[in-house]
Amino acid sequence: MANVVENVELLPAVCDEYGGIIVEMKEPMNPTVFHSMLISSMEQWKLQGKKGVWMKLPIGLVNLVEMAVKEGFWYHHAEPEYLMLVYWIPKTYNTLPINATHRVRIGAVVMNDKREILVVQEKIGRFHGTGIWKIPTGALDEGEDIFRAAMREVKEETGVDTEFMEILGFRQLHKSFFQKSDMLFLCMLRPLSHDIQKQDSEIDAARWIPFDEYAAQPVSQKHDLFRHMNDVCLATLEKRYTGFTPLAIKSYFGDPLSYLYLNKHGLKSQNGIAHI
Amino acid sequence: MANVVENVELLPAVCDEYGGIIVEMKEPMNPTVFHSMLISSMEQWKLQGKKGVWMKLPIGLVNLVEMAVKEGFWYHHAEPEYLMLVYWIPKTYNTLPINATHRVRIGAVVMNDKREILVVQEKIGRFHGTGIWKIPTGALDEGEDIFRAAMREVKEETGVDTEFMEILGFRQLHKSFFQKSDMLFLCMLRPLSHDIQKQDSEIDAARWIPFDEYAAQPVSQKHDLFRHMNDVCLATLEKRYTGFTPLAIKSYFGDPLSYLYLNKHGLKSQNGIAHI
Repeated sequence: MANVVENVELLPAVCDEYGGIIVEMKEPMNPTVFHSMLISSMEQWKLQGKKGVWMKLPIGLVNLVEMAVKEGFWYHHAEPEYLMLVYWIPKTYNTLPINATHRVRIGAVVMNDKREILVVQEKIGRFHGTGIWKIPTGALDEGEDIFRAAMREVKEETGVDTEFMEILGFRQLHKSFFQKSDMLFLCMLRPLSHDIQKQDSEIDAARWIPFDEYAAQPVSQKHDLFRHMNDVCLATLEKRYTGFTPLAIKSYFGDPLSYLYLNKHGLKSQNGIAHI
Repeated sequence: MANVVENVELLPAVCDEYGGIIVEMKEPMNPTVFHSMLISSMEQWKLQGKKGVWMKLPIGLVNLVEMAVKEGFWYHHAEPEYLMLVYWIPKTYNTLPINATHRVRIGAVVMNDKREILVVQEKIGRFHGTGIWKIPTGALDEGEDIFRAAMREVKEETGVDTEFMEILGFRQLHKSFFQKSDMLFLCMLRPLSHDIQKQDSEIDAARWIPFDEYAAQPVSQKHDLFRHMNDVCLATLEKRYTGFTPLAIKSYFGDPLSYLYLNKHGLKSQNGIAHI
């Protein structure tokens, strides 16, 4: 009978909560030995009615990748130190979750009470050498909250300490980076210090300039994105605009602490007290 | 002199706009031949003062991965059909952009004028078998806009046609999926049809239920996320809440059309006419 599984060693694996299997290879292994163990393991998992198989191969075990692909595995995602391969056993539609699709960045609007905005000129990128003053921008680190990233980037690029106020809006752009999308959150921050200490490695110049001078730059008039952002900044200055503010929410189902971004103003009840 | 480069064949490569090199391997190649061509190419790129080297290997060329790693390349990202490896030539800090860090999902609040909300029970996931009614949710496809994903998910899961109204808020959660973060956008939609045709593969049941019945479920009271979301839905029903709405922005710098999500209400001028 084909159903008889020989008494061979199987790959180290644990079950996941979706009827799948997670193989975590840590120790070096001869590719031929790995190949035969993989074949035996696959037979076993099929008999057990398993669905998805996840195989995490550290970069040190790169010599095993070819064998896994030979057995029908394909790439799910990769990080510098590992490659995650997957396989779907049933004949049905594959319900494996998709890989991360977005990179998240912040743009930081820091305005003082003299109606000046904190701006920089960068050493690299699209605007290098154009003389255009732009707001500090940057990508979120892995696992970083949006509001923390905004404060960190301003501090790194200009040395100015800030308090996070709100998210004014955001832009979703596709195919920004290979097939990946970009999400840029425009954040409003209040300065807590004034003196500028620019970052030498990435920043050519940093200054406080009058908001009207910033908004009057030709680039701001020419491009929809900049023009709308300036309208939003102005509306915020004139206190007729409200964005989203972060609200810490307690862990549930074992998830870590996270933040919900809402228009708190809209949650105020008739008597003006926020419910939250 | 070590500077003399032999007249050997180099790997197919083009320059990028950041002083780097992009190698796109398409044709099968013997790994040993690939290895010697890679070594010669690297010497050449070093002499040329190149910085980052990107190497895209289709899954069909998995037999070349080990040689690239042997020469110091590491993984940048992977998609089902290819693996992207990188190398940084200078002795300085590596400024290669990071990989995508977020998966983006939507939760769809669809309410009719009888104050009923469209809810489902799923065949898989956390809530399966609990009897809890939840709003339709789902992940964005690669390159999909948030507002389109919300309409698509509602249509797929329940058969109901909708018009997108606004984003009420969003939640950023870390380590949701391996080391990746999750961004869940809560969207408000207006139904354009009433009859339900549920999706058999993923959905156990779909119904219109009174909003108060939905909000009174114990799960909604117990967890911060659900409780705040219900507050926001109620505030929206009572027309005291405004979220973000999408605004198409024209391409610039060759970028594709994209959407900016803003609180349009806040952009209205004194006479009530929106600037945008």
